[in-house]
Amino acid sequence: MHPYNDLNVIAGQGTISYEMLSDCNDIDILLVPVGGGGLIAGCSLAAKAMNQNIKVIGIESELYPSLTNIMFNKKIKCKGSTLAEGIAVSEIGQIPMSFIKNFVDDVITVSDKSIERAIAMLAEHEKVVVEGAGATGLAALIQNSQKFKGKKVGVILCGGNIDSKVLSSILMRDLVRSGQVTTLTITMPDKPGQLQIISKICADEGANVLEVEHSRFAMDLSASVAKLNITIETQNSEHLKKIIQEIERNDLPVEIEGLV
Amino acid sequence: MHPYNDLNVIAGQGTISYEMLSDCNDIDILLVPVGGGGLIAGCSLAAKAMNQNIKVIGIESELYPSLTNIMFNKKIKCKGSTLAEGIAVSEIGQIPMSFIKNFVDDVITVSDKSIERAIAMLAEHEKVVVEGAGATGLAALIQNSQKFKGKKVGVILCGGNIDSKVLSSILMRDLVRSGQVTTLTITMPDKPGQLQIISKICADEGANVLEVEHSRFAMDLSASVAKLNITIETQNSEHLKKIIQEIERNDLPVEIEGLV
Repeated sequence: MHPYNDLNVIAGQGTISYEMLSDCNDIDILLVPVGGGGLIAGCSLAAKAMNQNIKVIGIESELYPSLTNIMFNKKIKCKGSTLAEGIAVSEIGQIPMSFIKNFVDDVITVSDKSIERAIAMLAEHEKVVVEGAGATGLAALIQNSQKFKGKKVGVILCGGNIDSKVLSSILMRDLVRSGQVTTLTITMPDKPGQLQIISKICADEGANVLEVEHSRFAMDLSASVAKLNITIETQNSEHLKKIIQEIERNDLPVEIEGLV
Repeated sequence: MHPYNDLNVIAGQGTISYEMLSDCNDIDILLVPVGGGGLIAGCSLAAKAMNQNIKVIGIESELYPSLTNIMFNKKIKCKGSTLAEGIAVSEIGQIPMSFIKNFVDDVITVSDKSIERAIAMLAEHEKVVVEGAGATGLAALIQNSQKFKGKKVGVILCGGNIDSKVLSSILMRDLVRSGQVTTLTITMPDKPGQLQIISKICADEGANVLEVEHSRFAMDLSASVAKLNITIETQNSEHLKKIIQEIERNDLPVEIEGLV
């Protein structure tokens, strides 16, 4: 059975928006991930049949804009590695397309950065594990918050097939992004007592130490100093700032590693 | 408002088993986490009112066996740090106890190891993020699979308030446990070309390298050899075994770090 170029698959997938709108029919916009187009074909058909005023918007990975190419007459190459593997499809199926052209109003692309943020938010706040492709709807909301402001938006989270290692890493990266886990690189004299100064500051401030690494090979330093990479857990960026100030007050220069 | 020693809280929490049994009334056993006792008071009352044959079993962290102490006349001290923080309560409330003694049939304690395994299984297979206390029901199933064999068991997953860092670490530890992520400690001559031998074997076998660390300070070794810690991702324990054999065929002894 073809995964999307098939009428029965389309009909089955359409039951998602049928169920969603049976529970809550007054949404303004429905966001549906687009790979081969089967899901959005069925969901747009069902949604428009139940409420003609609902705007149906397809969401694609910006690396695989196959529907964007058709709707906006572009020729962007579909390629690359994306978190949204499940919708990394280069060509929309012919059967789905016959529905899409009648029932889909618009299409938006999203970046892997937004998808990653969406996966983390869904786990943290909605307590649900969603794969990259399934999280693109929320990613679209994150990337276009102004566009959707004040609207009632339905988002279809269509899949949870995410590797544990990838999910684990996304959760940690989100803590780094929000200033709750940070690696500080501290240049310090290579003599006893330095680590004690730093670890006392962390202890006094209630920052949990996750990892410590000494580097003595960094050639941008003189032989009498060492670099310490210390990964700490803080409450937020204010808390982090306070700790950095405290360390620097001890004549120990601090850099923040990999801050984006 | 008291979190458990309160009739309204108990009534509200009882709606969980009311809803569960409204959907599926033919379960044999209902597993309910026990902290202060409010949840199981309400849930056992509602369950027994709807189906007298259902056996209601409370689940406690083995570090906080407050109901176990009462039901089995024991005096185990409640203390320590557990993943099931939400039910780390030393004393059952008086109001909940008046229901529990009438409607609860048994109580089981679970270890943090099973709770950890349950959290990982729920994320991986059920796609739901559950906190330690909420996962104790599944932990009881894991620890007592024979006891529940052939029974229809209802499990209440009562909370998702888990720290992202803890969840991230549990997911990684589960991959280590299942042989999908492993740190190998390899003793090798401290001369050029050794890392290349090992990385070629990993590449040929399709094992992803996650981390590499050299140690030259290990005093159990002579100065002419070094220790390499290499963390790799493999398909399963068979695949891992094959890679280890291949490395050892090159006269490089391998130990597996932290295998439980």
